[in-house]
Amino acid sequence: MQPFGQVPAYQEGDLTLFESRAITDHIAQKFASKGAQLVTGEAEMKVWLQVEINHFEPASSQLGWEQVFKPMFGMTTDPAAVEANEAKLTKVLDVYEARLSKSKYLGGDQFTLVDLHHLPNLQCLIGTPTKKLLDSRPKVSAWIADITGRPAWAKVLAMQKH
Amino acid sequence: MQPFGQVPAYQEGDLTLFESRAITDHIAQKFASKGAQLVTGEAEMKVWLQVEINHFEPASSQLGWEQVFKPMFGMTTDPAAVEANEAKLTKVLDVYEARLSKSKYLGGDQFTLVDLHHLPNLQCLIGTPTKKLLDSRPKVSAWIADITGRPAWAKVLAMQKH
Repeated sequence: MQPFGQVPAYQEGDLTLFESRAITDHIAQKFASKGAQLVTGEAEMKVWLQVEINHFEPASSQLGWEQVFKPMFGMTTDPAAVEANEAKLTKVLDVYEARLSKSKYLGGDQFTLVDLHHLPNLQCLIGTPTKKLLDSRPKVSAWIADITGRPAWAKVLAMQKH
Repeated sequence: MQPFGQVPAYQEGDLTLFESRAITDHIAQKFASKGAQLVTGEAEMKVWLQVEINHFEPASSQLGWEQVFKPMFGMTTDPAAVEANEAKLTKVLDVYEARLSKSKYLGGDQFTLVDLHHLPNLQCLIGTPTKKLLDSRPKVSAWIADITGRPAWAKVLAMQKH
């Protein structure tokens, strides 16, 4: 189902999709009549979808790997890697603090896939010392409280516990 | 214009965009009535847009950095980095060879942004020893000849020479 042998893959009748951000986009558009509107079609939203991929994801996923997954697999956290990626994340969060002073969410004034795509890595960082970088920025920390507090995200977290 | 201080940025009246793949998407949709249709709206195309970002781009841009840009800046190519990234690119090209046996282009049966996003890194690799990985795959090399042979790409290359 996935030519690179990775998760996730998604099947819907004859349609097989992979790449998580292509799957979320497909589902958001296909079920646009149900629940929150997660895609606006604005060029602005597309910009911030790319920012998550190219700036937030690399730094935050490395910080999660070093501080959450390595210990889970009995491996040792590399402090130099944490430091380097916290420096990268700091720059990203400074851009986000400025952005969230102008719009309520990253993709515009409504919650969209842009914010949603941040949830897994953010949730992971909240349980690490990197949380200090999130807490020290008022707009960023209010945004995180908002998006992690959504009922749909609570359902995802509850499923992971089972 | 670009909060991360990088190129490119794009201005159109009051609209300022950054992130190259958001800009190409905006232009393709805005000028859909002129020239080639570069966006199909199919979920399949979205999958392959993500494959370029997450699989092709990292390996190919590192190979370009090591073999084209480092020598240009008087720096020394690291053979271990070339080897590691050629191994990554090999896996990607094997997936592409299978994909291009089923559809004429990566995003489906027409030329789309998926193929277009490959052009800069492909053009760069063609001038390096990594070209052997492209040449040894019949479907991949026919696809490269097709997309690099488009008149619009010839115009881009001609502009770079001035």
